Amino acid sequence: MTPLIDGLQYANWSEKIFRQMRAGGVDAVHVTITYHETFRETVLNIERWNRWFEQFPDLIFQGFTATDIATARQTGRTAIFFGSQNPSCIEDDIGLVEVLHRLGLRFMQLTYNNQSLLACGCYEAEDSGLTRMGREVVAEMNRVGMVVDMSHSGERSTLEAIAMSSRPIAITHANPASWHPALRNKSDRVLRALAESGGMLGFSLYPHHLKDGSACRLQDFCEMIARTADLMGIEHLGIGSDLCQDQPDSVVEWMRVGRWTKRIDYGEGSASAPGFPPMPEWFENNRDFQLISEGLAKVGMSTDEVALIMGGNWQRFFSVSFDPKTATGLSLDDGRI
Amino acid sequence: MTPLIDGLQYANWSEKIFRQMRAGGVDAVHVTITYHETFRETVLNIERWNRWFEQFPDLIFQGFTATDIATARQTGRTAIFFGSQNPSCIEDDIGLVEVLHRLGLRFMQLTYNNQSLLACGCYEAEDSGLTRMGREVVAEMNRVGMVVDMSHSGERSTLEAIAMSSRPIAITHANPASWHPALRNKSDRVLRALAESGGMLGFSLYPHHLKDGSACRLQDFCEMIARTADLMGIEHLGIGSDLCQDQPDSVVEWMRVGRWTKRIDYGEGSASAPGFPPMPEWFENNRDFQLISEGLAKVGMSTDEVALIMGGNWQRFFSVSFDPKTATGLSLDDGRI
Repeated sequence: MTPLIDGLQYANWSEKIFRQMRAGGVDAVHVTITYHETFRETVLNIERWNRWFEQFPDLIFQGFTATDIATARQTGRTAIFFGSQNPSCIEDDIGLVEVLHRLGLRFMQLTYNNQSLLACGCYEAEDSGLTRMGREVVAEMNRVGMVVDMSHSGERSTLEAIAMSSRPIAITHANPASWHPALRNKSDRVLRALAESGGMLGFSLYPHHLKDGSACRLQDFCEMIARTADLMGIEHLGIGSDLCQDQPDSVVEWMRVGRWTKRIDYGEGSASAPGFPPMPEWFENNRDFQLISEGLAKVGMSTDEVALIMGGNWQRFFSVSFDPKTATGLSLDDGRI
Repeated sequence: MTPLIDGLQYANWSEKIFRQMRAGGVDAVHVTITYHETFRETVLNIERWNRWFEQFPDLIFQGFTATDIATARQTGRTAIFFGSQNPSCIEDDIGLVEVLHRLGLRFMQLTYNNQSLLACGCYEAEDSGLTRMGREVVAEMNRVGMVVDMSHSGERSTLEAIAMSSRPIAITHANPASWHPALRNKSDRVLRALAESGGMLGFSLYPHHLKDGSACRLQDFCEMIARTADLMGIEHLGIGSDLCQDQPDSVVEWMRVGRWTKRIDYGEGSASAPGFPPMPEWFENNRDFQLISEGLAKVGMSTDEVALIMGGNWQRFFSVSFDPKTATGLSLDDGRI
């Protein structure tokens, strides 16, 4: 049976949410563990996850390789794969890419809205593409097996990352801008280049990325997926729900402003609606993936096609993305991680 | 065939030394990667090792489990297992034990000569035993699979660590004080308790731990080992050479004083001999283990007994020491590390 995999979540984790993952049959989730945190702060976040793994061993465990998806199914647990939404965690030190990969980081965004040391974010006025360090870090991420994620990056940086990465990249949580024009959504040009390079798009359910926002209808969402399959090919599509369940609004403020400004930046929100927007009523938590599967069937997708979008494609992508490569052909650790 | 394993080295690593390991047939080495360094500084040291693993993949690779000893033999390389000679690397944060274990740290001394947050070193005037944090950290090390190493600890702290640890501990590099009375060598009481608990003693070749220092004769060293086998049982003995090959004297100063004093502390040296002492002529580098094997045979040990001391015992100890335990019986990562 094809697994159910979510390509991005950032919830206020709790036993309740881990149990909802089990109730919803979620086999694997890429979770954001860090935004603007330094390396040491990111390690503190990993320590917090280690505590959850120790407290809830019957519900969750840390995923390192694609084979952990099968382990999750066999043991009735959810495999948690770590990712970062900004490269703050590697500071100015390329050696931290391998260290964080060893600690389980499997995705890293090159930017979060702003210019970073590596590339340009989608909120900057001008995008000058990958930096000198950015090109070095992409090559190192390719070597160790860490996915380049361009969800929050600018158009030119994204196209350059697709072109320069020797392994397929991902846009883990975004939608086509042709459906809903938002700075965070992606142009058809980016989506075509992503598909041609073997990359993956995870469809976001974050209301600011949806047509009609929180009022978006399930049918519209599923019809958009069907049209994107026509554009990109169905094998490049998955879900990246961007579920931020139970987070207080202070967290969205950290996500948006980190330590880079003393003012408030509302990002995709506004002064009148500064917090997390309410989720669509048909996707409020991890028990609701079945509704999306049913919605995709209703817009004409076959059972096999639905299964690919709901996890089969992510499983294949994980299986070619997380293992280290070395010049000698020997894996860094003899294939164990 | 039984592997050749060294229970501790801290060389000024280079391709020359890695090639000497291969020439000497050394299958695995526990290497010190950090003394007084903070967590972040320790990670920088790991990054340096990652660079060596990448540069010399035909000579060395990082060891994580005892099965890597077999991998080393099969692939003609040396497995490098990380250790720390002081708990500075976990700072005041017990969560760093699991993080560093994930990064490959397999041994950690609770002290380096001085009082630490965890226990008392062998140079303090008074030893009040394991601290509150020390008891917590020993339990955590037991859980994740990190060996408690008491080589530089005081008598009472060592006896308490032996008694309180739920897994066998090690004294990776020291000799019996009855042979050569030095603060760093161990009493028969400690050695007996160590053996009774299933622990390991690695015999040191660092001249300050040897009778007659740099002039110590191979025969005297081997006779001391034979007598210790009578005291402890041969299955608890290995080599922990403490080889500090090619290190400049500035390094022994860092080892001795770190950042804890502005003055010079000569440790086992003296104002007239502040640097590294010359090694005995029969043990200068990794090609010389064969001479020890021959020396042990000459004092009457059988081939099987020599093989146990030269690596067989460490192999057995590694195999029961490095894997995580959890309350549920599921290993933390399904047995992969």
